[in-house]
Amino acid sequence: MTDAAQMIFDRLLPPPGPPQAAQARAPGNIALAKYWGKRDPALNLPCNSSLSVSLRDWGSITRVAPAPDRQDAVWLNGERLPGTSPFAMKALAFAGRFRRGLDAPLHIRTTNTIPTAAGLASSASGFAALTKALCAAFGADLDPAGQSQLARIGSGSACRSLWHGFVRWDRGRAPDGADSHGYPLPDIWPGFRIAVIPVDIGPKAHPSRAGMNRTVATSPLYASWPERAEADCADVRAAIEARDLRTLGETAEANALAMHATMLAARPALIYLKPQTWVVLETLWRARADGLVAYATMDAGANVKLIFLENAARDVQAAFPPARVIAPFDPP
Amino acid sequence: MTDAAQMIFDRLLPPPGPPQAAQARAPGNIALAKYWGKRDPALNLPCNSSLSVSLRDWGSITRVAPAPDRQDAVWLNGERLPGTSPFAMKALAFAGRFRRGLDAPLHIRTTNTIPTAAGLASSASGFAALTKALCAAFGADLDPAGQSQLARIGSGSACRSLWHGFVRWDRGRAPDGADSHGYPLPDIWPGFRIAVIPVDIGPKAHPSRAGMNRTVATSPLYASWPERAEADCADVRAAIEARDLRTLGETAEANALAMHATMLAARPALIYLKPQTWVVLETLWRARADGLVAYATMDAGANVKLIFLENAARDVQAAFPPARVIAPFDPP
Repeated sequence: MTDAAQMIFDRLLPPPGPPQAAQARAPGNIALAKYWGKRDPALNLPCNSSLSVSLRDWGSITRVAPAPDRQDAVWLNGERLPGTSPFAMKALAFAGRFRRGLDAPLHIRTTNTIPTAAGLASSASGFAALTKALCAAFGADLDPAGQSQLARIGSGSACRSLWHGFVRWDRGRAPDGADSHGYPLPDIWPGFRIAVIPVDIGPKAHPSRAGMNRTVATSPLYASWPERAEADCADVRAAIEARDLRTLGETAEANALAMHATMLAARPALIYLKPQTWVVLETLWRARADGLVAYATMDAGANVKLIFLENAARDVQAAFPPARVIAPFDPP
Repeated sequence: MTDAAQMIFDRLLPPPGPPQAAQARAPGNIALAKYWGKRDPALNLPCNSSLSVSLRDWGSITRVAPAPDRQDAVWLNGERLPGTSPFAMKALAFAGRFRRGLDAPLHIRTTNTIPTAAGLASSASGFAALTKALCAAFGADLDPAGQSQLARIGSGSACRSLWHGFVRWDRGRAPDGADSHGYPLPDIWPGFRIAVIPVDIGPKAHPSRAGMNRTVATSPLYASWPERAEADCADVRAAIEARDLRTLGETAEANALAMHATMLAARPALIYLKPQTWVVLETLWRARADGLVAYATMDAGANVKLIFLENAARDVQAAFPPARVIAPFDPP
């Protein structure tokens, strides 16, 4: 059987040679128009375009080096993982796509700079940083769009974590995904803010990959999603260009709720939001009725992220004391 | 402008004459496959068929009588309503369809036998009982299917409250709705139980008629609903015939969640479920993982209704102390 994903690596990378030590970092990202559903699960090709903002210094730092003990091994936040850990297995399988059979055992050390208490997934920044580090280790002089294609195969949303600021991931049309990768938007919006309201900082009840596939396969409402999601992505893009936070926020919030609606209708239902998520949302909607200009988005987890402008930061913090505010366009 | 609804009354009723005093009762009902979305808002013609179970002695008793004081007036649970009350206005507008211009002021007295603490809507039983009482008052010798058509115009789901037990409402095809009414299923299932778990017994935040119309008009996911809902209705019917509670419950629960999903994706979102609703659902799903055979359904409100068999009643009551259990097939 042809390994369609490996063919992409073979085409984009130079012939495999002994790796060098290399280190890279990448920011996490929050989608304002969501990626949900794959048209090609092997290549992580999406049914719709998506658009995110990167989280500046919240992300991952990954170091790849030849293993002095000639044993593959993975460390996460300083702790050596057992070989059966899903993260270790995914990271080493991904490294294998660069090694292509070469006998070159690796040590992979990843440190997340996203506070654990924020309850944010780190697979996007993790696979983006790993992709950059592996490209450097194997001497692949790829431009970021090429790296983004490889990162996408590791974890879809990782393809948006190659840049800071706003990043759009075009769904693309090519069967091999050559046109399905992130690219940065030129827009700099210094007053733009994201806040994370932690609700549940434990591991996810359902991995998002499995959840996405179950939704596409069983949700009677999924069929209507891709077209609306594509339109939302364009609307978010236009709202960013216009610096129109209301339109951006309304669209992002509706887009996130529609994504969760497709899951709620899956059979059996797929529910990432917790009762406490709804308490946070009700608090937000009451505050908004009282004049707060802030909007919510939720990913495949129970936490809420708010979108607002700098001048609302104090009110957001007052309404949500656990909120952790990020200024994506501040200098590092 | 033609009043399409009035034309139905004109066709089905005898020429208007002086009314007599009359009284009728009708049970409430809980849909196991939901009615959600109208293809004709004036006639309350649905986009999909639905199927309910009636709530035996939980319902409405309505008395209609010529007004001795020659003033239209409406009482609800013994209390005279102001003329501006939405219920009074709806009831008198409906009575007007029977009077057809005749000078015949009426006193309408409705008593709900659904405990207020159950937080269940009573418009279905209310309009069904009102239809029966008005038919009797105006000497209209209609069969229940004809009465069901008239009740449907008052409040869609009222057309299922003309009977006890399981009732199916066929969506129908005729433009005038002549084939869109309830009919009783022959199935008697003595062990079948419904429990109401009250979450929020206050008035609805959004009337269901407005919510339904907003969902059809703005929810990108609504387009996929009618076809799935029609299939669910057929599956629920087959599960009743087979006395298969698991299939019935799984289908009813998925159908209710899909209905709420269409609302969650409306723009702006339409959310009847409260955080406490999700707490009840999580409790149910945990109990089910531990072996409890019970399933949930929710209508345009925050309360949860459970579906189970007699042999699970004790466990349901233990898991949900506020549960109020109904045996729809017990003798009255």
